[in-house]
Amino acid sequence: MTDLRIFVDLALTPELVEILREGTTGHQLVFAQQPAVSVLAQADIDPGFAEVDVAFGQPDPEAIRGARRLRLIQISSSGITRYDNAEFRRLMAERKTPVCNSASVYREPCALHALGFILAQARHLPRSLQTVTANGTAEWDALRDACRPLQGATAVIVGYGAIGRRLTEFLTPLGMRVLAYRRRARGDEGVPVLTLGDLARVLAAEADHVINILPHSAETIRFFDADRFGAMRPGAVFYNIGRGATVDQNALLETLRSGRLAAAWLDVTDPEPLPDGHPLWAERNCHITPHVAGGHTNENLSLVRHFLGNLGRFVRGEPLCDRVM
Amino acid sequence: MTDLRIFVDLALTPELVEILREGTTGHQLVFAQQPAVSVLAQADIDPGFAEVDVAFGQPDPEAIRGARRLRLIQISSSGITRYDNAEFRRLMAERKTPVCNSASVYREPCALHALGFILAQARHLPRSLQTVTANGTAEWDALRDACRPLQGATAVIVGYGAIGRRLTEFLTPLGMRVLAYRRRARGDEGVPVLTLGDLARVLAAEADHVINILPHSAETIRFFDADRFGAMRPGAVFYNIGRGATVDQNALLETLRSGRLAAAWLDVTDPEPLPDGHPLWAERNCHITPHVAGGHTNENLSLVRHFLGNLGRFVRGEPLCDRVM
Repeated sequence: MTDLRIFVDLALTPELVEILREGTTGHQLVFAQQPAVSVLAQADIDPGFAEVDVAFGQPDPEAIRGARRLRLIQISSSGITRYDNAEFRRLMAERKTPVCNSASVYREPCALHALGFILAQARHLPRSLQTVTANGTAEWDALRDACRPLQGATAVIVGYGAIGRRLTEFLTPLGMRVLAYRRRARGDEGVPVLTLGDLARVLAAEADHVINILPHSAETIRFFDADRFGAMRPGAVFYNIGRGATVDQNALLETLRSGRLAAAWLDVTDPEPLPDGHPLWAERNCHITPHVAGGHTNENLSLVRHFLGNLGRFVRGEPLCDRVM
Repeated sequence: MTDLRIFVDLALTPELVEILREGTTGHQLVFAQQPAVSVLAQADIDPGFAEVDVAFGQPDPEAIRGARRLRLIQISSSGITRYDNAEFRRLMAERKTPVCNSASVYREPCALHALGFILAQARHLPRSLQTVTANGTAEWDALRDACRPLQGATAVIVGYGAIGRRLTEFLTPLGMRVLAYRRRARGDEGVPVLTLGDLARVLAAEADHVINILPHSAETIRFFDADRFGAMRPGAVFYNIGRGATVDQNALLETLRSGRLAAAWLDVTDPEPLPDGHPLWAERNCHITPHVAGGHTNENLSLVRHFLGNLGRFVRGEPLCDRVM
């Protein structure tokens, strides 16, 4: 199978374009007039899109509807919010067009970021990196005493996919107990998978660390709402490295202010970034990074390699990596 | 064996004094007039010390020389700087007085603190927790790109004891390669142990993360000097959770300023805290916590339990835990 027209809307350096060209010899690359800048941004429909066979990047769902030749869609993110609805899934199923995300590119950095958050909380790094207290002072004693052990603590990972699985491999050696929640348990999770009813009980009674990796879809919007936050075990810590829209931020703020939640660590918010003056910026125990959990050195090279791997599999008729539809 | 006189110079709450009393029924507790405030501080010799059988806390080495009845010394820290010299070791050997530290109390929090430093560096948390950059900006791209993977990276742990061993259990699942250096290899380290010659070669060519857990003794003062820092692999990161005196801080500063070291993470300095205006405070890639790596909730309870465990072993004639002399 040669001479595929491959649409690319990733902003690539000349070196990466060269690697992409070498890896797609015999096919034709069609670069977007306007490269995609963010998973969350909307771009105009590209005029070159209608006639392509393969799309790599963040292709517009509307444009995909009109591009009837499309036979492979490789999304350059882990999240697939814009595509994750019943209508789009039905269309792809009808056309037999496989859709892959780039979960395996982002699994490792996202799991590391979550681990970094958990450790930074356990060791109170934001506070201890900013103080100049002397050994033996009351502040020093308080800071040392605030460092809670992780051994024996319970972590609940909500939205348990590739990232959660990898994170479990990091948390288990720390002596933590890991429980999972996901919409559809597959039986190969390797940790106990909770039902929605179990989850409520565990959040109220057992969860010390609640790690939200839910994708954003119609089913997950404001999954963490006032009821869920309000019922959490006092002293619990909430982490979000999934998508901002899965959290009711007002409810999060109230739960932090009430002291029920010890802290929140957010890599994603709604919107991004939060506007100046948003009260979560000022909340003492709320720690925010700007949607960088998946970032890593040579990220675009990883994405290009992942795409070329899947393109090769597609051409050879082999099962694809990270297929989500 | 009953009616031991037990000297205690730890500052304990009434609840902990009660636990200590219950655990030492049949013996006599002698509390210091002036409780020890810090491992690094010097206290006056306590008048009650000369007649005790057991010492628990930070007993003065001079006082120990004069206390000829002493049959068990339980140090309430991991570091034993003030006792770690040939003369003191000889005296304890002559008197057959066992000396124990509290390494097993501090192993877990110290290993977690080091892991927290490594993750905070890998995910650039200090920078990303302080920025409000939007997705897709040049700053955002740079921040994401700065996050270096840990998989395949080489960590060298210098001063490989109980903490290093536990840290290895955390780093291995991250896909890191761990090498160790210690003065006297025992053969049970479970990771390759470098000679001093190996260490120079590895620091220059392979070490991405250099984790200093050396104790402070005559042999280790300024172990990390201008020569060692200057020969480090460009881009390496230096961590210190051992003792400040093992580092030539001027050399560290120069190596950071030259850009050869990507960053330094210090839980210990010399002195503590560093004085106002010390250039390491202002160094952009130098991150300092105030000697809190061993801190954890109910730390003094852990120390009391550890002491009571060893007292029981001593009374029953069993091998002691964390014996260092």
